Amino acid sequence: MILVMKPGTDAAMIENIRLLLEERGLGIHLSAGTQRTIVGILGDKTKLSDLSLELLPGVDRIVHIVEPYKLAGRTFHPEDSMITIKGVPVGGDEIAVFAGPCAIESEAQIMSVAKAVAASGARFLRGGAYKPRTSPYAFQGLAQDGLMLLRQAAEEYGLVSVSEITSERDVEEAGRYVDVIQIGARNCQNFRLLTEVGRSGIPALLKRGPSMTVEEWLSAAEYILREGNYNLILCERGIRTFEVFTRNTLDISAVPAAKSLSHLPVIVDPSHACGKRSLVAPLSRAAVAAGADGIIVEVHPEPARALSDAAQQITPEEFDALCAELTGIASVVGRRFAYGPRS
Amino acid sequence: MILVMKPGTDAAMIENIRLLLEERGLGIHLSAGTQRTIVGILGDKTKLSDLSLELLPGVDRIVHIVEPYKLAGRTFHPEDSMITIKGVPVGGDEIAVFAGPCAIESEAQIMSVAKAVAASGARFLRGGAYKPRTSPYAFQGLAQDGLMLLRQAAEEYGLVSVSEITSERDVEEAGRYVDVIQIGARNCQNFRLLTEVGRSGIPALLKRGPSMTVEEWLSAAEYILREGNYNLILCERGIRTFEVFTRNTLDISAVPAAKSLSHLPVIVDPSHACGKRSLVAPLSRAAVAAGADGIIVEVHPEPARALSDAAQQITPEEFDALCAELTGIASVVGRRFAYGPRS
Amino acid sequence: MILVMKPGTDAAMIENIRLLLEERGLGIHLSAGTQRTIVGILGDKTKLSDLSLELLPGVDRIVHIVEPYKLAGRTFHPEDSMITIKGVPVGGDEIAVFAGPCAIESEAQIMSVAKAVAASGARFLRGGAYKPRTSPYAFQGLAQDGLMLLRQAAEEYGLVSVSEITSERDVEEAGRYVDVIQIGARNCQNFRLLTEVGRSGIPALLKRGPSMTVEEWLSAAEYILREGNYNLILCERGIRTFEVFTRNTLDISAVPAAKSLSHLPVIVDPSHACGKRSLVAPLSRAAVAAGADGIIVEVHPEPARALSDAAQQITPEEFDALCAELTGIASVVGRRFAYGPRS
Amino acid sequence: MILVMKPGTDAAMIENIRLLLEERGLGIHLSAGTQRTIVGILGDKTKLSDLSLELLPGVDRIVHIVEPYKLAGRTFHPEDSMITIKGVPVGGDEIAVFAGPCAIESEAQIMSVAKAVAASGARFLRGGAYKPRTSPYAFQGLAQDGLMLLRQAAEEYGLVSVSEITSERDVEEAGRYVDVIQIGARNCQNFRLLTEVGRSGIPALLKRGPSMTVEEWLSAAEYILREGNYNLILCERGIRTFEVFTRNTLDISAVPAAKSLSHLPVIVDPSHACGKRSLVAPLSRAAVAAGADGIIVEVHPEPARALSDAAQQITPEEFDALCAELTGIASVVGRRFAYGPRS
Repeated sequence: MILVMKPGTDAAMIENIRLLLEERGLGIHLSAGTQRTIVGILGDKTKLSDLSLELLPGVDRIVHIVEPYKLAGRTFHPEDSMITIKGVPVGGDEIAVFAGPCAIESEAQIMSVAKAVAASGARFLRGGAYKPRTSPYAFQGLAQDGLMLLRQAAEEYGLVSVSEITSERDVEEAGRYVDVIQIGARNCQNFRLLTEVGRSGIPALLKRGPSMTVEEWLSAAEYILREGNYNLILCERGIRTFEVFTRNTLDISAVPAAKSLSHLPVIVDPSHACGKRSLVAPLSRAAVAAGADGIIVEVHPEPARALSDAAQQITPEEFDALCAELTGIASVVGRRFAYGPRS
Repeated sequence: MILVMKPGTDAAMIENIRLLLEERGLGIHLSAGTQRTIVGILGDKTKLSDLSLELLPGVDRIVHIVEPYKLAGRTFHPEDSMITIKGVPVGGDEIAVFAGPCAIESEAQIMSVAKAVAASGARFLRGGAYKPRTSPYAFQGLAQDGLMLLRQAAEEYGLVSVSEITSERDVEEAGRYVDVIQIGARNCQNFRLLTEVGRSGIPALLKRGPSMTVEEWLSAAEYILREGNYNLILCERGIRTFEVFTRNTLDISAVPAAKSLSHLPVIVDPSHACGKRSLVAPLSRAAVAAGADGIIVEVHPEPARALSDAAQQITPEEFDALCAELTGIASVVGRRFAYGPRS
Repeated sequence: MILVMKPGTDAAMIENIRLLLEERGLGIHLSAGTQRTIVGILGDKTKLSDLSLELLPGVDRIVHIVEPYKLAGRTFHPEDSMITIKGVPVGGDEIAVFAGPCAIESEAQIMSVAKAVAASGARFLRGGAYKPRTSPYAFQGLAQDGLMLLRQAAEEYGLVSVSEITSERDVEEAGRYVDVIQIGARNCQNFRLLTEVGRSGIPALLKRGPSMTVEEWLSAAEYILREGNYNLILCERGIRTFEVFTRNTLDISAVPAAKSLSHLPVIVDPSHACGKRSLVAPLSRAAVAAGADGIIVEVHPEPARALSDAAQQITPEEFDALCAELTGIASVVGRRFAYGPRS
Repeated sequence: MILVMKPGTDAAMIENIRLLLEERGLGIHLSAGTQRTIVGILGDKTKLSDLSLELLPGVDRIVHIVEPYKLAGRTFHPEDSMITIKGVPVGGDEIAVFAGPCAIESEAQIMSVAKAVAASGARFLRGGAYKPRTSPYAFQGLAQDGLMLLRQAAEEYGLVSVSEITSERDVEEAGRYVDVIQIGARNCQNFRLLTEVGRSGIPALLKRGPSMTVEEWLSAAEYILREGNYNLILCERGIRTFEVFTRNTLDISAVPAAKSLSHLPVIVDPSHACGKRSLVAPLSRAAVAAGADGIIVEVHPEPARALSDAAQQITPEEFDALCAELTGIASVVGRRFAYGPRS
């Protein structure tokens, strides 16, 4: 941590800082430039948590040198993390494909999607049971009934199940039905939920919030990791910008950025990022080409009759065509994706 | 609701839409332009919730005519709402001033702030007991102990108490201690929490999320209103933009915007918007000048030793000077603010 | 064009509108919904340019049905445009690769880069002679001398030359040296420059501005097209968002978006989008995977000693490795890229 | 300037940096923390303009300590600048009010507006002659004829005239007609234009670009100042964000921010910021309350028939009511505004 002092800072101000830090067992290191003096702080900064150095006389601003996400960061964990859920890896050589409907609507619907996506090469089945919707008048999901249908479909087709929960109260129940708990963009800073998911030890998928920087996303991940749950996958799903053609703006750079700062696997959700069916395939290809460890795509047997986010769900046929393309892209970036049914 | 059809749409496509809507008891109204055909939909649109009209053949895009926030909007409630909490009004002629520390730290701290802000003219005492923090390593608040201290200080100085909760689990408990429940920016789309606060009937203060449009904010308010809780205050606290000098960008236009679209009272939080002590007073004055019904300001007896968000808390002396200025601004916009202790 | 009327609009207001439009030879078409009346306007809307319909009594808002970029749009030009410059196509099957230094610094530098990039498969040589820099104290380019060096290098290695100009005064001169004039992000709404480039007929590359929507970008393109210059290439180079890890946020969705709205070729500049050397290759692969017609990449023989934007320039060796990857990506999306020297 | 080194940086890397800087006459100052080493650079940093320190082995990132806008900044010019144009001050005690139509349309129009705004207390008459319009099909202004009408109206009513120019070619001509040259948001990084305006010595008003940070805006101002032209006024006019209710988002915090970083006067343009007539008065009041040195407001005798930006122009009557309110706001912040005709 560095304090940049204001022009005209005098020796008494510096001495004041020195004494204050000394009381807490920290040292300082001075560097007097031609225009400004810089104070480096040496020692354990957690001892400063009750002090606001930026308000001390003479201090202009503080520059943090070490990133605030120790467990998610690469400094103490330089190698990539590979997570294995029910035998299926995420973050290794293989591209992980998650697919399924935005909302689980009926047994017929989820079974038909599960069958189709498994046949194209997906290993993870996603489906929403608790839907956070901007308007309270929109379809809110089948809740527990939905989770049971999801489990049934996943088991039938040998898939790993993934579903979003929106309250810390539902962690325990969800753990009985799903293999991976998804924390959505609207709850990515619901720290009570993050902590509870951390404690549960259940594999988790953490979406980036629409107004979160990559580093803030890693700080949110830290809430899960510090409870000892390292089965964590990050998911980029678009940020909020002024562009209105797409629902959000997929921050494709966040893929190599997050992977350079963190050891955690990073996947991409093109469906929520763009909100437009025709953009799902191009963005999925781009994600894998940029180095993503996987994608999570919304697939619906009949998008025109979907109860939720119809505009962004693709058909099983479109999904199959996309999977066929992923194999080629994966091989260019030194990864693998096995198109077609699992042998 | 209007459907804008693609160039080259033919009669069969229109007929298809007509039949689909007729099945549900809705009618259509055609308007053929030189380049495009427009289909107006007549009748109760809630009957369309299971249909995705944008995916029907020929449909280019949908234009919504009526706003999706019926209870928060002015269409069916043209006059301003005035809310009265423990006899103190928000949304009437008087400017409501909320003040207090970011986090409640000790009895001495909250009592001293309460005394000071009451003497300057504040009628509401704010203080955080459950602090949502970006980093899990930051101070997280005193929880229930904090709420008890807040209640004690509010009662001692005749103030209305306000505190944030971050989980639906805490609504009942918080209701025993605080007069107004605050829903913070990070939880503004935590719909389970919104619904629970709605059911509780406890007066609520809903902050705008950092990536929410004004209309999405009103849709979030709808979750509280539809449970029958009309004791609701909106609070603008800055949105996320590319500007880095301030923590967020105070959207001052959101004040007249929200007040034109909605009948609910709208206040402004300059402290979180800017994150900088020196900007709190100018932004507070601007808020009242722009038509806000009040402000909520962070005040700390010793900002340099604050445990949370020190950089944005002002001293009781600075707060007093600000209050002295508000009387003049209020009178220009046809409002009142009584500076000084309540007679 | 549609007028959405306010609740409570009466017949006299509608009649007023009808008469006003009739005077100008336009008709109206009414559609009375349960809550709102909609007025469709029939006829040539250019006759309304002196009227502000949104201010007429009863009008709530206007919805535009037809896009404002006729020449850039697909409505009247549904097929893709392919542009050929000195025999080299952009927008056809082949992926166009533009490469070269941010700024032309010396004969040795530009010759060495030209040689290297030609050997890897680039067909276009870029290099800045007039550098628009945020700070006036930064290197501003070699001006005309730079253009002469660029031409010399391009001719020597059989490349098409591309350089940015920043003033309408330089169009004529630049036309003597370069094959393609680049209009940078800072000048994308310098309409005098756009018009002058349009009149010149010189092939142009129009970058998207950092705060421009895709549709505003197409409107800027319209300034060039309406002067009769159809030799136009669009270039996505990142938009300004709150994310600070990258200099800008590459809007990868803008590639399929712009290509769906417009017939013009669309390329991507990953270097300016991210401002970070390590992200150039992943973003270049993503661009081609998303359907871009090409990329424009900054290459410098010795990035550490570059006079401009060093952090985002890659070495010829890194560029060569990237080109090797592009062939595979191109083939997945049904395109071609010939890695290696032109036979 | 500070270099933050990567974890694991060794002595050889530091020595390499030391030698490189020594060659250029600069020194270093080391500060070894527990996790990272910090290298402070001592001496004249302009000697480093041909080096890219961030690419040297071991360097993680660079932190700039001194702001890059020496002439605009307060470090070497701590007191406020007051500019006087034809005897009318900007930046002193008096609030400066600029008013007039978006575009000059006819003699009758500009004369009638000039008369009205002078009667309400405006001292500056604005009017557009060269209109930069997003679409080439919109009204582009009367050019030189417009400037002549503006001069005539300003002289008749004792006002200072202000008009935007969009090309360096027009600086000389504009100087013959207008007292203040306005550089619009679309040209705020048209550095050729900035330099030419700087050389002309003509008083200038520099709008902030829609995607510029406050510090980048000050760097743009530097282009004018370094040519010796200190007659410069900054103008905040809204930034581009995701909010769509307003055309742009007025960054009200930019007023105190710019005034704390720079000595230059700062005014606010509420009309372009919001694009909505009903928001002009609240935002104008907010601007003065936040400490702005003035406002620039669009006024049109008949907004419904305006040829440009009708939706954001207020009537002379609305303007008069606003001016009446400004006196009270100004006095709260220790400023003056004389409502009514100049005595």
